[in-house]
Amino acid sequence: MAKVVTLEGKRRTPSLEPLLSLCADDMTRVDREILARMRSPVALIPELASHLVGAGGKRMRPLLTVASARLCGYRADDDRHIKLATCVEFIHSATLLHDDVVDVSILRRGKPSANSVWGDKASVLVGDFLFTRSFELMVDVGSLDILGVLSRASTTIAEGEVLQLVSQRDISTPEATYLEVIKGKTAKLFAAAAEVGAMIAGRNGPERVALESFGMNLGIAFQLVDDALDYVGRQADMGKAVGDDFREGKITLPVILAFLRGGVVDREFWKRTIEKLDQRDGDLEHAQVLMERHNSVADTLERARHYGAMARDALGLFSDTPLKAALLEAVDFAIARAH
Amino acid sequence: MAKVVTLEGKRRTPSLEPLLSLCADDMTRVDREILARMRSPVALIPELASHLVGAGGKRMRPLLTVASARLCGYRADDDRHIKLATCVEFIHSATLLHDDVVDVSILRRGKPSANSVWGDKASVLVGDFLFTRSFELMVDVGSLDILGVLSRASTTIAEGEVLQLVSQRDISTPEATYLEVIKGKTAKLFAAAAEVGAMIAGRNGPERVALESFGMNLGIAFQLVDDALDYVGRQADMGKAVGDDFREGKITLPVILAFLRGGVVDREFWKRTIEKLDQRDGDLEHAQVLMERHNSVADTLERARHYGAMARDALGLFSDTPLKAALLEAVDFAIARAH
Repeated sequence: MAKVVTLEGKRRTPSLEPLLSLCADDMTRVDREILARMRSPVALIPELASHLVGAGGKRMRPLLTVASARLCGYRADDDRHIKLATCVEFIHSATLLHDDVVDVSILRRGKPSANSVWGDKASVLVGDFLFTRSFELMVDVGSLDILGVLSRASTTIAEGEVLQLVSQRDISTPEATYLEVIKGKTAKLFAAAAEVGAMIAGRNGPERVALESFGMNLGIAFQLVDDALDYVGRQADMGKAVGDDFREGKITLPVILAFLRGGVVDREFWKRTIEKLDQRDGDLEHAQVLMERHNSVADTLERARHYGAMARDALGLFSDTPLKAALLEAVDFAIARAH
Repeated sequence: MAKVVTLEGKRRTPSLEPLLSLCADDMTRVDREILARMRSPVALIPELASHLVGAGGKRMRPLLTVASARLCGYRADDDRHIKLATCVEFIHSATLLHDDVVDVSILRRGKPSANSVWGDKASVLVGDFLFTRSFELMVDVGSLDILGVLSRASTTIAEGEVLQLVSQRDISTPEATYLEVIKGKTAKLFAAAAEVGAMIAGRNGPERVALESFGMNLGIAFQLVDDALDYVGRQADMGKAVGDDFREGKITLPVILAFLRGGVVDREFWKRTIEKLDQRDGDLEHAQVLMERHNSVADTLERARHYGAMARDALGLFSDTPLKAALLEAVDFAIARAH
C-alpha cells in the first residue's frame, strides 16, 4: 500500500488531512455559505437539506474548487470561490437526493437517507430546489464562461444518471459504457469543480486544462474505489451497507469483470442475481468468492490506480508547494481507502 | 360570458388562435429548437421527453416569451428569443415530469403520463436533464440579467412545489398560502417568461415591469381556472380526469372556500375525504354539491377574473396593435375555458 513520506522521513497512511488543513479557512466559509443558501421560508427545505448537506460528507468537491483556486494563485478577498464551491456541493447534493430516490436507498453516509425519513416526494422537490439554488449562485458569480462549464457538467450528470438507469440490469454492459456512466455521474463534477477553481483565478490556459484533467481522473478513480468497496469494505468506513450495489443489481466494474472472466455456470449466477434480481441467502458471499477467484475487485483497484496516476501527472506543471503535495496525497487517499 | 367583438362587429368566443397565428413563425422555430435540444446520445432521454414536450401542450409559456419580445419591438434576426422560449418550456416540462411523480398521476394532457409509461426513476432523471439543459440554453443566450430572472424563478418554483407538498392534506390552509403556492408553482414562470421577452428586446424599464406583472396575473388566473375545472370540467377539455385533485387530497381554492363556508357536518366531510383521504363512492359528487351550494367554484372563477383584469390593465402602456389585442384575448381565453 502506498505510503506518504513525511519531511522527517517517516511513512504514514495517505490522508485528506493536509489538504483540509491548508484549506480550513476557506472551507469554514463554504460551510457558512452552504447554511445561508439553504435558507427558505419553506421550513422543510433547510430541514431536509441540512440532514444531507449539513453533516457528514467529506466535501471533496468544494474542497477541489477552493484548492484549485488557491493553487492557481487566487488571492482575491471576495467570495466568488466560496460561492462556486457551495454551488458545486449543491449540485452534488441534489443528485444524491434524486439518486437515493431512484435507487430506493435506505442509508446515506451511515444515516437514514432523506427519502427514508421524509419520503420520495420531498426528496425530489428539495433536490430541485438545491439544483436551482446552485444556478442562482453561479449567476451571482457573474461569469458566463463558468456558467457554461457548470451547466454543461450538470447536463452530463443528468445524462449519466439516465444512462445508468437504462443499462441497469444488463449484465453484458461493456466496461466502456460503465466508464461513460461513472464519468457522467461522478467524474464530470470533480472535473468541473477543479476547472472552475482555475477559471475564477483567471488561469484559462494550461492550468485550467490541467485541473480539469486532474478532477476528471481523480473522480474516475474515486468512483472505481467506491464500487470496489461495495464488495469488500466495512460498513463503518463507507456509511453505506456492504452489498448495496449487488442487492440493487447495479452493474459496476467488479461485476462486469467477474461476469466476463467467468464460465457458463458463473454467468448464470450473475444473470439470476443481477439481471433478474432473484437473490437468495448466501448469494452476496458467493459473489464475493467469484470476485476473489477472478481478481475482479483487485483489478478494479488496479484500474483506479491507473486513473490516479494520470491525476497526479496532470499537476506536473505546477511548482512544488505544500498545497500541491496535499492534492497529490488526496489522490493517494482516494485510492488507499480500499485497504 | 365574455365575448370578443371582431372588426366586423361580431361576437365570438375568446380564443388563443389570434396570438398563435401572429406568432406562428416564431413558434415553428421554437418547436424545431425544442426537438434539437432534446437530443442526447442516451436514447431514452429524447424518447421520454418528446412524449411530454413533443406533442399536445398549448405552449403557453414559450408563446408568452416570443409575444412579449415582439410586443417590445424585438426585430432581431438572431435566435435568442427562440432559445429563451425553449428554455422556458423545458423548465415547465421538467416540473411537470417531477410533479407527476410526486402526485402519482396517471394521465397528462389526455395521454398516459411519462411516469406511468417509463416509471418514476426515468421521469425524475429526464426531468433533471431538461432542467440542466434549460440552463445551458440560458447560458447560450449570454445575458446575466436574464439568467438571474430565470434562475430565481426556478428556485421559486421548487419552493412552491415543496410548500404545496407540506400544506397538502391540511384543510385549514389559508387562501393566502394557497395563493403563494400557485404563484410559485405556476404564475412565477408565466411572469418570468413574459419578463425575459421584454429584456431580450432591451426594454428594461416600465415595459419589463408591465410584462412581468401581465405574466404573473395571467398565471394566477390560469391556475385558478385549472383548479376550478378540476371539479366542473369535462375530461375532453382538460386532458386530465375530473376529480383528480379531490382524489389526491389537493388543497385548492374551491375546497378551501367550501370548507370555510360550510358547517360542522361539511367540515367533517372535508376532513375525512381530503385530510384523511378516506374516500367512498359518491364522495366526489357530494363535494361538487357542497361547492355548488357554497358557490365555491363560481367564486374561484370570480377571483380568476380579478387577476385577469389586472393582467389586462398591465398592458395599458403598450399601443394598440393586433399583437396586444391578441394578448388581451389570451387572458379572456384563459378564463373562458371554464364555461
